[in-house]
Amino acid sequence: ENAEKFIETYGLSIGDKIQVNKEDITYTGILLDRPEDADDGYLVLKLSSGYNIGVAIENTAAELIEKGEKPKIGFGKSEIPADPKKQNISIVSTGGTVSSVIDYRTGAVHPAFTASDLVKANPELLDYANYNVKALYNILSEDMKPEYWVKAAREIANDISNGSDGVVIAHGTDTMHYTAAALSFMLKTPVPIILTGAQRSSDRPSSDANINLIDSVVAAKSDIAEVCVCMHGSLNDKYTYLHKGTKVRKMHTSRRDTFRSINAQPIAKIENKKININPDYAYTKRGVNGLELNANIEEKVGFIKSFPGISSDYIEYHIDNGYKGLVVEGTGLGHVPNDLIDSFKRARDENIPVIMTSQCLYGRVNMNVYSTGRNIIDSGVISGVDMTPETTYVKLCWALGQSDSYNEVKEIMHEDIAGEFSEKSSIKDFLN
Amino acid sequence: ENAEKFIETYGLSIGDKIQVNKEDITYTGILLDRPEDADDGYLVLKLSSGYNIGVAIENTAAELIEKGEKPKIGFGKSEIPADPKKQNISIVSTGGTVSSVIDYRTGAVHPAFTASDLVKANPELLDYANYNVKALYNILSEDMKPEYWVKAAREIANDISNGSDGVVIAHGTDTMHYTAAALSFMLKTPVPIILTGAQRSSDRPSSDANINLIDSVVAAKSDIAEVCVCMHGSLNDKYTYLHKGTKVRKMHTSRRDTFRSINAQPIAKIENKKININPDYAYTKRGVNGLELNANIEEKVGFIKSFPGISSDYIEYHIDNGYKGLVVEGTGLGHVPNDLIDSFKRARDENIPVIMTSQCLYGRVNMNVYSTGRNIIDSGVISGVDMTPETTYVKLCWALGQSDSYNEVKEIMHEDIAGEFSEKSSIKDFLN
Ligand SMILES: N[C@@H](CC(=O)O)C(=O)O
Ligand SMILES: N[C@@H](CC(=O)O)C(=O)O
Repeated sequence: ENAEKFIETYGLSIGDKIQVNKEDITYTGILLDRPEDADDGYLVLKLSSGYNIGVAIENTAAELIEKGEKPKIGFGKSEIPADPKKQNISIVSTGGTVSSVIDYRTGAVHPAFTASDLVKANPELLDYANYNVKALYNILSEDMKPEYWVKAAREIANDISNGSDGVVIAHGTDTMHYTAAALSFMLKTPVPIILTGAQRSSDRPSSDANINLIDSVVAAKSDIAEVCVCMHGSLNDKYTYLHKGTKVRKMHTSRRDTFRSINAQPIAKIENKKININPDYAYTKRGVNGLELNANIEEKVGFIKSFPGISSDYIEYHIDNGYKGLVVEGTGLGHVPNDLIDSFKRARDENIPVIMTSQCLYGRVNMNVYSTGRNIIDSGVISGVDMTPETTYVKLCWALGQSDSYNEVKEIMHEDIAGEFSEKSSIKDFLN
Repeated sequence: ENAEKFIETYGLSIGDKIQVNKEDITYTGILLDRPEDADDGYLVLKLSSGYNIGVAIENTAAELIEKGEKPKIGFGKSEIPADPKKQNISIVSTGGTVSSVIDYRTGAVHPAFTASDLVKANPELLDYANYNVKALYNILSEDMKPEYWVKAAREIANDISNGSDGVVIAHGTDTMHYTAAALSFMLKTPVPIILTGAQRSSDRPSSDANINLIDSVVAAKSDIAEVCVCMHGSLNDKYTYLHKGTKVRKMHTSRRDTFRSINAQPIAKIENKKININPDYAYTKRGVNGLELNANIEEKVGFIKSFPGISSDYIEYHIDNGYKGLVVEGTGLGHVPNDLIDSFKRARDENIPVIMTSQCLYGRVNMNVYSTGRNIIDSGVISGVDMTPETTYVKLCWALGQSDSYNEVKEIMHEDIAGEFSEKSSIKDFLN
């Protein structure tokens, strides 16, 4: 069956408040325009909760409740009306659930909306800003690659130099924290750069996309000129947190409050569209930094994890195969079995920086406590201090894009480039 | 200077309550016998908090406060008096901080106490049980190897068949959860098997070894016939938690409450030497299982983590180098870049099981939600469900020790062998 015909049959038009009866369930909401390449067999409704839902029209009846107005925007960018009193926010979509639809045949989610669909599916966004929307990629974020970070950083820099007052990046959650860290190192920015996503796709009844997107726009309009992640702060829809792009990590496979600041507090809480900045947090204010893009990176960087049966061949493999650097997720304070240490020495001799992090995730690497750690330091391994392993990996890609000297890379790894180190740790920073 | 001479000079003997003045600090405590191979330059005191501290005798003066009795035990096992009214607990030491001393020359910690020193340094242990003590290894746990798990499992089985009412294993914290998982799969046990450790060494003023050890003995005497980890439950010394050996993980590099149940609640809380078992928890009671040892494992198992720049060569490497199985820490619900999937197919064709886990740590792998996950399932990859990546790695070593057929290994991986799956997840199980 065809959705257009279905709408016609029931005498409905886009913008109407309707009721849809489908087997045992009744949905009431505003009939939305569908994404450009939508599967033709379903309607999209905006529920009063703000969520969008897709309803397959098979075995479905509909009823008009109240005539409505067609939402202000249509398909093309030119049709979005600009309001000179509002700030100009760029929305860059890369794919992921936040910009996905469910394939109703298989039940699987795949990226299909474009950035302009995002605005169309969330018309209240128009109350907050003028938008410049762009679909940069349409991929699940597990397929992000370092070279895509580079292209994204260039696009964002471009938008900012063209006058954007803030940038929102719609991104899959799987690797959002890697991209957030990459943009943090690559860009010095006069305006906020906010990554956001969703754990359930935009057209599902319980999608978290709506509040994450709107709060990201609130953040993008704010005074915090940093790269941040904006995501749900709890299991309900009451507030979101803004996390520093270098201190955040996905900590749960499916919860909407999956993103957590590690060894740090969130920068701000956004509740009822109001941003409350953490008073302990010294953020970079809007306009303080000029725009600077440094997107040179080295892609040939390894990332491994230590474990009881690990062989030193894991290290040798990277040396023998032209890797330019290696991040190791050690145990505890930053350890590996002592029989790996000779391979670290070989890496050092071949000018390949090895950075030690901890699979504990929380706390900081300290290789001065145990004999193992001291041996590791002596072999030339560099501490990742309290960075997450993921941020350390991204930073090493970036540091090796700046220099191929071991000593210079070591210096860069220990320099605070984008707030990746916490000066002091607070007991509140554990599992919060 | 020589500690024995120092003691003589000041007219002190082991067991006396003394005061030691060292530069600006004064310590009051019971003078303890030192470990067999102690550095000769320091005294060990038991403070009234229960902690032991090592004080270098250089620039130190001492004073007798009260004559005391030499602690009941000396060096050899035979000198520990057995009380027929008490249960018989085995203490097996493998090394780690819990059985370490600081090297006062370098400040680094290295394993040096033996299991019998553990009892000597914690004389109140004698109030709780009779002990059979054994130093199996004296290593930092970052140097544990799968073959050592096997030896430990055999020793423990031996102790149990010789009449132990419970076993305590003193272990380094770095890889304690790997060993706990290994013993969980290798042993069916009629009595408790409790791993414990410390974040600060036994002879430091703030060591957590004392309460962890005593509470482990309380757990070893209890009715919970499972392999568990017993460690601090908070930053203070008020209580410890007992965690299921297959559901626990070290989550902080240095906090004493570093061990956490992942996707599960602790089995019990031990407070004031009393054990409170979580009423929701269906544990195996003492005596229900007979002793069974199955320590066959495959050591050639790989363990890697996905990241944005990962090359399919990481998978090919394991296939080309004789690995018998591979655990992958994917992103989100259990994903890797789609361009790795052909290598998974090759692994499947070569009968090498690949198990998917999540680097989120919390939540469960679900490869049915996204197209990527479905492709990964189609390539023959097996889900790790809600096991930690570390438990999954250990279980795969064990499963491959039982069978080399892909289908049988898949079955074992999805069978609940040692409580490694949580039936349902609770919202309380996140970051708790
Ligand atoms: N696997 C998806 C999940 C999401 O969008 O949140 C992705 O990262 O793109
Ligand atoms: N690195 C030490 C830490 C400890 O003992 O807790 C070990 O695991 O052995």
